[in-house]
Amino acid sequence: MAGSRPLVLLDPFPRNNAMILRPADRARLEAMAELRTVEAGALPDATVEASLPEVVAILGQTPLPAARIARAPRLKAVFNVEGNFFPNVDYAACFARGIRVGCVAPVFARPVAEYALALTLDLMRGVTRADRAFRRGEEAYGWRGNIGVGTLFGASVGIVGFGNIARALVPLLKPFGGSLRVFDAWLPDAVVREHGAEPVTLDCLLSNSQVVIVLAAATSANRHLLGAAELGRLRDGGKLVLLSRADVVDHEALDAALRAGRIEAAIDVFPDEPVAADDPIRTMGCAVLSSHRAGGLAETLLDIGTMAVDDLDLVLRGLPPVRLQMAQPETIGLQRSRPGLPAGR
Amino acid sequence: MAGSRPLVLLDPFPRNNAMILRPADRARLEAMAELRTVEAGALPDATVEASLPEVVAILGQTPLPAARIARAPRLKAVFNVEGNFFPNVDYAACFARGIRVGCVAPVFARPVAEYALALTLDLMRGVTRADRAFRRGEEAYGWRGNIGVGTLFGASVGIVGFGNIARALVPLLKPFGGSLRVFDAWLPDAVVREHGAEPVTLDCLLSNSQVVIVLAAATSANRHLLGAAELGRLRDGGKLVLLSRADVVDHEALDAALRAGRIEAAIDVFPDEPVAADDPIRTMGCAVLSSHRAGGLAETLLDIGTMAVDDLDLVLRGLPPVRLQMAQPETIGLQRSRPGLPAGR
Amino acid sequence: MAGSRPLVLLDPFPRNNAMILRPADRARLEAMAELRTVEAGALPDATVEASLPEVVAILGQTPLPAARIARAPRLKAVFNVEGNFFPNVDYAACFARGIRVGCVAPVFARPVAEYALALTLDLMRGVTRADRAFRRGEEAYGWRGNIGVGTLFGASVGIVGFGNIARALVPLLKPFGGSLRVFDAWLPDAVVREHGAEPVTLDCLLSNSQVVIVLAAATSANRHLLGAAELGRLRDGGKLVLLSRADVVDHEALDAALRAGRIEAAIDVFPDEPVAADDPIRTMGCAVLSSHRAGGLAETLLDIGTMAVDDLDLVLRGLPPVRLQMAQPETIGLQRSRPGLPAGR
Amino acid sequence: MAGSRPLVLLDPFPRNNAMILRPADRARLEAMAELRTVEAGALPDATVEASLPEVVAILGQTPLPAARIARAPRLKAVFNVEGNFFPNVDYAACFARGIRVGCVAPVFARPVAEYALALTLDLMRGVTRADRAFRRGEEAYGWRGNIGVGTLFGASVGIVGFGNIARALVPLLKPFGGSLRVFDAWLPDAVVREHGAEPVTLDCLLSNSQVVIVLAAATSANRHLLGAAELGRLRDGGKLVLLSRADVVDHEALDAALRAGRIEAAIDVFPDEPVAADDPIRTMGCAVLSSHRAGGLAETLLDIGTMAVDDLDLVLRGLPPVRLQMAQPETIGLQRSRPGLPAGR
Repeated sequence: MAGSRPLVLLDPFPRNNAMILRPADRARLEAMAELRTVEAGALPDATVEASLPEVVAILGQTPLPAARIARAPRLKAVFNVEGNFFPNVDYAACFARGIRVGCVAPVFARPVAEYALALTLDLMRGVTRADRAFRRGEEAYGWRGNIGVGTLFGASVGIVGFGNIARALVPLLKPFGGSLRVFDAWLPDAVVREHGAEPVTLDCLLSNSQVVIVLAAATSANRHLLGAAELGRLRDGGKLVLLSRADVVDHEALDAALRAGRIEAAIDVFPDEPVAADDPIRTMGCAVLSSHRAGGLAETLLDIGTMAVDDLDLVLRGLPPVRLQMAQPETIGLQRSRPGLPAGR
Repeated sequence: MAGSRPLVLLDPFPRNNAMILRPADRARLEAMAELRTVEAGALPDATVEASLPEVVAILGQTPLPAARIARAPRLKAVFNVEGNFFPNVDYAACFARGIRVGCVAPVFARPVAEYALALTLDLMRGVTRADRAFRRGEEAYGWRGNIGVGTLFGASVGIVGFGNIARALVPLLKPFGGSLRVFDAWLPDAVVREHGAEPVTLDCLLSNSQVVIVLAAATSANRHLLGAAELGRLRDGGKLVLLSRADVVDHEALDAALRAGRIEAAIDVFPDEPVAADDPIRTMGCAVLSSHRAGGLAETLLDIGTMAVDDLDLVLRGLPPVRLQMAQPETIGLQRSRPGLPAGR
Repeated sequence: MAGSRPLVLLDPFPRNNAMILRPADRARLEAMAELRTVEAGALPDATVEASLPEVVAILGQTPLPAARIARAPRLKAVFNVEGNFFPNVDYAACFARGIRVGCVAPVFARPVAEYALALTLDLMRGVTRADRAFRRGEEAYGWRGNIGVGTLFGASVGIVGFGNIARALVPLLKPFGGSLRVFDAWLPDAVVREHGAEPVTLDCLLSNSQVVIVLAAATSANRHLLGAAELGRLRDGGKLVLLSRADVVDHEALDAALRAGRIEAAIDVFPDEPVAADDPIRTMGCAVLSSHRAGGLAETLLDIGTMAVDDLDLVLRGLPPVRLQMAQPETIGLQRSRPGLPAGR
Repeated sequence: MAGSRPLVLLDPFPRNNAMILRPADRARLEAMAELRTVEAGALPDATVEASLPEVVAILGQTPLPAARIARAPRLKAVFNVEGNFFPNVDYAACFARGIRVGCVAPVFARPVAEYALALTLDLMRGVTRADRAFRRGEEAYGWRGNIGVGTLFGASVGIVGFGNIARALVPLLKPFGGSLRVFDAWLPDAVVREHGAEPVTLDCLLSNSQVVIVLAAATSANRHLLGAAELGRLRDGGKLVLLSRADVVDHEALDAALRAGRIEAAIDVFPDEPVAADDPIRTMGCAVLSSHRAGGLAETLLDIGTMAVDDLDLVLRGLPPVRLQMAQPETIGLQRSRPGLPAGR
């Protein structure tokens, strides 16, 4: 039986408590709730089961089939500590009960947006490529080292997917002037326009952008949204920045375009990770290679705890959560993501 | 003899006309002036000498000792097409006559500021370093690939030298929040504050900044402004971005700090360019290497012509120039720069 | 019986169709739905009742007790066209069914924020007061006309209530520099900080702000949040801008402070509207008087239709609405607002 | 004879020392220079004459004909403490000697820009007009009080004259979106474009702007730049904000347009100040009246001293001034301004 304070389960596996909770947030959490947790590994099933009658909130990826939810009459909130919604929760059962279901995707918005800008500038100005040439002793100085290089100032940028990350990216891009085109199949034009960007079709975006930044979440509808035909619409010398998710792009088609030297790309996500040791992408000169590094900074992971505890505090005070991304009945079934990644983004 | 239109010399050597003048600007120039130029090489001395009695303006680096200026009674403007003032002009003679002497440094403000941000983000997020690891087959995924990596959001940034470039950089840094400290020995604090930055001493800047961006022009007073003692004030893991000019930093001390792995640096300028083939800097893992690439984009060089023709138009209409940087009597003697670089920044 | 297109009721009374729907939005609406509406007055009860079996969405303030909702098995969305949630809907019944309930408050965010800035600048610079003096023939010129007048540049501003309006106001205030303190009892500090403002207690805000802008929605908890004691914390010469809602401030205490000449205020909402003809507020020299004008521009009312049709389109496509403000189970019971205002804000 | 510190005259009449110098700036000034001044009235001629052999800098409007300048061999800087250059200085003599001649116009940029925004918002939203109606007991509530009223969000704005003030205004206007057209006869298009505005002809500006803001300095070329024909190009209901200078607009034509109710205007400067007691402008309902109040705040006048002492410090250290506006040989003869205004802007 829980004491007078509400019972909360903390079950961040495959992340762990120290990775996502600063001492101050751990202290806040313990002050507001009776906590059940383990410091390593997943919370044992027996602990979960025994807690169901009293549990008020769950922080983590605890499996929650309908039967468990039915046995948790006081449950008000399930906040996972990943950037996605996994299929181990019966969302319909939660919605019917008014249980708040959230994920911490917004915590990654700024670091991923920053990384998007870093990769965009790298491609536009040829930073990584020039560093490689320098190390080979093949650097060229001054304007001779900038042949074929352009600037982001005044450039045409296209963004595929206008969610948290894109909205954090817009203020970073704005000072460069230039045009900003956005494709997002789920948003009214007005939302895109409110952010000072132009809503367009995917074809229009691909044909008119010097650099295309892919930020769309993976859904059942957008696998290989950018295939050979779409990549073919990019102009010669066009740049592609691929951040989330790997499946949104047909990597075979992308590799072919890179091999042909027709476009340049910065790639942070791959269909199979780790990438095979002999994958030819590893030697591609017109690519910047990154190993799923966009969001998972140590500081960012610690922000997860702050964000989740902030919203737990609201829920326990009878107020709506405001920081996490809440699952939506209409779209929860369209999400595709792989559970159980060890501390991915 | 010049016709009714004013006589203007176009003498951009070691740059050439096609490199700095778009067709539209060439046409504007020919519409407003009687032009004397050669399409390659420097304007011959004989042409210069013969033109002196009538010449109204000179675009380029034509040598102008006092004797020549004395024989050019109608001369109103000398606009070189470099980012520096060279010692082949008798500036005192120009000032005494009210001849406008300008250089095109402002054209480089935005591209160099962009490059400063690109290198800063590269160091903060480890982009180039991670690309190198990926190519060696040693990449780590997710948070494991981000150990020791930080974010520019909320970071403390220090800028040494608050001229055109720094002022173009501030709006690019602003969206990241964080603090901005500036050291500039020639500016009142109020100018720095007007741009939303904090004016500090060099020591304060070095001790308190996660990343230090060096943008100071070379003067007779700031050689090795950042020596071993100053670099020692940087915190462990501190980042240094060196753009202009090489001599502002003691490269021996910098190399030692890099070799020790104590700091990281992105370096665009070197005491001797090209860098020696066996310079150990070429293998330094904690450096991003760049071969004097910050400003000299093809598009930027063409902006030189636009800028110079804009100001020539004003001067010929009896108005003050507004786009070029005008030589100042107080500081012209303090500039140190090497003339005759083939199409440097 | 509805045809193949979904049945939608359009019932904006006391607003009317022409006031909130541009022809283009009306056309969009008719293309996506079978529409039942009347061009003036409320939709007759008989029409509503007859529509319940088929109705999919309702745009307007149609009364929806539990019994009606029970008889509307296909109902997916209720979007009123006011800035508040009225008590004539059984919200619990809607939540249990997963019916989306929204209001168009966000449409007013920008115009009200603009008005907040207009009134703030008016108080800071004495615009209206100086115009009155000029008309009385008592104007003073130059600095003599500015005695006691300050500037918003660098000023300390406090905002009470950090919702849609405040977030639209922040970007308008940012270019003035200065400090921004925010009090909002329902928000974690991090949300305020993300917008570049400092979260503080109400007392701290009142004691430290040269101008206080009241934007809080009326709830069961904040009646007379600013009473005599709180207004007493404002510094002499402090400014108060009162936009929403009248009841958040104790107007008797406010009038006393104005009569004493201790503070200045711009007031857009009053406990009783219209204000009595002989209300002494009408002659108060240190007040700027405004008759509930902050949000209700003709263009803004027409934006209501755009916003509602945008979200209806999403709902009919099986996607979540993104533009309206959705009712939240936790807070819906705390809202206090008066239904049936003829075309108020 | 001055001591080892350089001799500086402080002669701000018709302003006085206390009005323009904070104690801290007075202390800085006394630390860097041997000061000669009087606390009230102009510096006596005898004092000026006796100081000429040693004087290094003059802060104020001291008459400086060529003969005086000739007798001041050490004079390096003349900084008046007004926003204009007056004809009581022989500028050609100064230029020939390399004497720096500056005025403090930049100190007024922000307060005047702020006032421009305040008046623009007042006209757009009808603030002052509604306050007047309220006091007459004729206010209308909600949308009925906003008939004919628009918003600055998305509006087309035109600015005549793109100097210090306009450049300080641009960042205040940017958050409102909308278009910004600029007419300035002395500037290349690129300068306007760098600030994110569109350079246009005056006719284009007048025909396409919902609100026109006049910020041009008075020159020998722009008297009545906006006459009856130009005002006639404004659309019905167009708004005009007139800040500097009165003579740029034909006030007879403006009054006629206001009398006809065709446009609205906010007017801060008048051909004759004070305005006649019976001037019909005083009863014009579609005008906002302001008595030359845009720049002369007490805090702003004190900033004059800070700015002048900052630049004096630079000059005495052998560096170029950076804060004041320096007189330009090309344009100094075109300025028209009336000397001796008692502490005007």
